[in-house]
Amino acid sequence: MSLSLNQWTTRHWTLPEAVDGCVRHGLEAIGLWREKVAETGLAQSVKLVRAAGLRVSSLCRGGFLTSGDGTAFAQALEENRRAIDEAAELEAACLVLVVGGLPGVQPGEPLPGAFGRDLAGARERVAEALAELAPYAGERGVKLALEPLHPIYCPDRAVISTLGQALDLSLPFPEEQVGVVVDTFHVWWDPRLFEDIARVGSRIASYQVCDYLHPLPADVLLGRGMMGDGVIGFRPITAAVQAAGYGGDVEVEIFNAEIWAADPDEVVATMKARYEEVVLA
Amino acid sequence: MSLSLNQWTTRHWTLPEAVDGCVRHGLEAIGLWREKVAETGLAQSVKLVRAAGLRVSSLCRGGFLTSGDGTAFAQALEENRRAIDEAAELEAACLVLVVGGLPGVQPGEPLPGAFGRDLAGARERVAEALAELAPYAGERGVKLALEPLHPIYCPDRAVISTLGQALDLSLPFPEEQVGVVVDTFHVWWDPRLFEDIARVGSRIASYQVCDYLHPLPADVLLGRGMMGDGVIGFRPITAAVQAAGYGGDVEVEIFNAEIWAADPDEVVATMKARYEEVVLA
Repeated sequence: MSLSLNQWTTRHWTLPEAVDGCVRHGLEAIGLWREKVAETGLAQSVKLVRAAGLRVSSLCRGGFLTSGDGTAFAQALEENRRAIDEAAELEAACLVLVVGGLPGVQPGEPLPGAFGRDLAGARERVAEALAELAPYAGERGVKLALEPLHPIYCPDRAVISTLGQALDLSLPFPEEQVGVVVDTFHVWWDPRLFEDIARVGSRIASYQVCDYLHPLPADVLLGRGMMGDGVIGFRPITAAVQAAGYGGDVEVEIFNAEIWAADPDEVVATMKARYEEVVLA
Repeated sequence: MSLSLNQWTTRHWTLPEAVDGCVRHGLEAIGLWREKVAETGLAQSVKLVRAAGLRVSSLCRGGFLTSGDGTAFAQALEENRRAIDEAAELEAACLVLVVGGLPGVQPGEPLPGAFGRDLAGARERVAEALAELAPYAGERGVKLALEPLHPIYCPDRAVISTLGQALDLSLPFPEEQVGVVVDTFHVWWDPRLFEDIARVGSRIASYQVCDYLHPLPADVLLGRGMMGDGVIGFRPITAAVQAAGYGGDVEVEIFNAEIWAADPDEVVATMKARYEEVVLA
């Protein structure tokens, strides 16, 4: 396993700056975001990561596939096909899917006047969307990576809340087409975590680490902390992921106002040190 | 099933006021809190609820049984024995257990300098505590009710995060001694919810309803809302609880600054109306 910088951890760096930062700190891989790729341009982004000799450990992100409105659902599928195309160009190890919350609830926004409370229906639409997208991804050599998000994000970001649930949704598809993300922030509390990591086995498409801060900040999206700053005991999780056969990159993806305000080079240096100190099994 | 007022919903009412309120609004049951019982006195509390002809649908709460320190663990057991004694006097249908979070982390407080990240160990201590407390409860005719809390409370309040986990912890004991709480706020997101409610069956010791607000307020403990004000679709959950055989009281327990600031009589009236409108299957 090898450490990878998810570029949102150093979100004030442009893509070229993040690529340079990885090289400067001796990292072999980077996790990219579509917004950042678009800012630099897809072709230029591909050129830069190849010239730097970096692996693209993931592209973030596709998803938001729970709308009950036919037109909106079709538009979401089309947007995801574009994301798959980009992941193919970048030769990303996977395209991360944040599947979306309750229909009509926008990420990070207050509840609107009307929205859907049919959680089971939203989950069914994710399965339908996967049936559309998995073959398309497969034809382009892209693996979709279903990311279970902490249940706190169930209303607005992801109706997939556990690793076991993500695995069950992936099983109808070849594992080259659909895998799952193990992100410590989202799954550390799960009483079935270790049994589900073993069950997931070679379906693990990405292992992402960051800590879970407590108490969470008012904007719960920013509750991700540097490893060692929160409540997670990483070593048993890393050991389980390794025992399941995962040998890919380990991405650090931190959404955190203080870390974003800090010198990105210091953040990357701390990230490397903490990875050795508290994450490695 | 019959509606019950958990007295924390009208927390500014004393126990006598809450008992009067239940009678005035035609409720047959009340859920009590130990703090409120202590304020009025145990004997007087018993007298008041009996005179009013109310069932005590639950006593809140025992728990906080995860300390790795032998002395603190023994003290916690002793405190829980006192709570069991009180539940017996009150003839409460169950004593709710909020089992405690990571050792050294205090409920609602920031992380201390030193605390335990051994989540598995904390969970083992809950099992050990149950083995001590269940026979004691059984001898006094008290049922312990394990409450899984939303994973957001895993660091500081409950290392039991799912209904399935609570059930598994209860299974070594007779169901007269250890049951589980289904609280919609805590479990609505769980992808295994319906299968686990069926599996829990007659182990359901209490069904509690309130809504899950989104976004949560800065103090996440106060994210509980009046039914209909949040994201939960109640009817399928109520139907599943009934299908599992539950015929006890349905408690409404809301921690919410606005509701606490409102006229308690209006809160109870709204609670009764919403129960009919959105909760009943």
